[in-house]
Amino acid sequence: MDHPEEFSRLLTEVADRAYLTTIAEDEYPHTRAILNLRNPSIYPHLADLFDEHRDDFLIYVATNTSSAKLRQVRSNARGSVYYCHPKRFRGVLLVGDVEIVDDGSVRRMLWTDGWEMYYPEGLDDPDYSVLRILPKYGTGWSGSERFEFAVGQA
Amino acid sequence: MDHPEEFSRLLTEVADRAYLTTIAEDEYPHTRAILNLRNPSIYPHLADLFDEHRDDFLIYVATNTSSAKLRQVRSNARGSVYYCHPKRFRGVLLVGDVEIVDDGSVRRMLWTDGWEMYYPEGLDDPDYSVLRILPKYGTGWSGSERFEFAVGQA
Repeated sequence: MDHPEEFSRLLTEVADRAYLTTIAEDEYPHTRAILNLRNPSIYPHLADLFDEHRDDFLIYVATNTSSAKLRQVRSNARGSVYYCHPKRFRGVLLVGDVEIVDDGSVRRMLWTDGWEMYYPEGLDDPDYSVLRILPKYGTGWSGSERFEFAVGQA
Repeated sequence: MDHPEEFSRLLTEVADRAYLTTIAEDEYPHTRAILNLRNPSIYPHLADLFDEHRDDFLIYVATNTSSAKLRQVRSNARGSVYYCHPKRFRGVLLVGDVEIVDDGSVRRMLWTDGWEMYYPEGLDDPDYSVLRILPKYGTGWSGSERFEFAVGQA
């Protein structure tokens, strides 16, 4: 594949959800579906933000402070996020360390109408947390062709 | 939740695909979409097989011998398979060690018309391999309710 980065970027935008994996305390990998904030059809107000991060493939995850993934990330930061085409055999995995973001401006920037369903107290709900991943590399598949690329090595 | 096992079993049957995670050599988790052989609408000829394994949640994965996941499993057996409802926020993760199955009768039992697309030489294609996971536990979500159950502890 000639342009795996561009192909992968599009995949992260077309996927209707994403799959975050972290390492549990027993060292087994735990995966769960997450909202795919990089999809500009679902989150149009975040499209410019992610456009500014075209080259570093920045990922944000909104999650419950009380969730297992936060506990897991505190003991082992290694994680990955998988995006795949809803219908075709195309997928990309972005791999890197998961950080917990304490910055209030980031929490505000990501906040989306309707999230009161997850965080009843709104933006200041103590159960609203944000995770950030700056991937080290990506790897994926287009049909049976496998590709891999480094991120942020410029 | 009163019957997490039964709920989880149904989820593994309704999901159109599954997500297998293994641990790569760099200790980061790698996830990829796999065919969900437990879905009886897609694989009716395998429904009886999985019905016999209702209680142990046996998972089989057909894959390429040359794939990264086989190499990863040889160096670290810890893995998990995630199933989620295609539309609703319901998912279950089955967690356990991944084994490579050398048994020819299992390869034959799982073989599905059309897999020549992945393994051109058919059933005896050296690139056709089978993985098996006998989960230790399951954990999942039904909306915002989290549940967990042990498997095979009877």
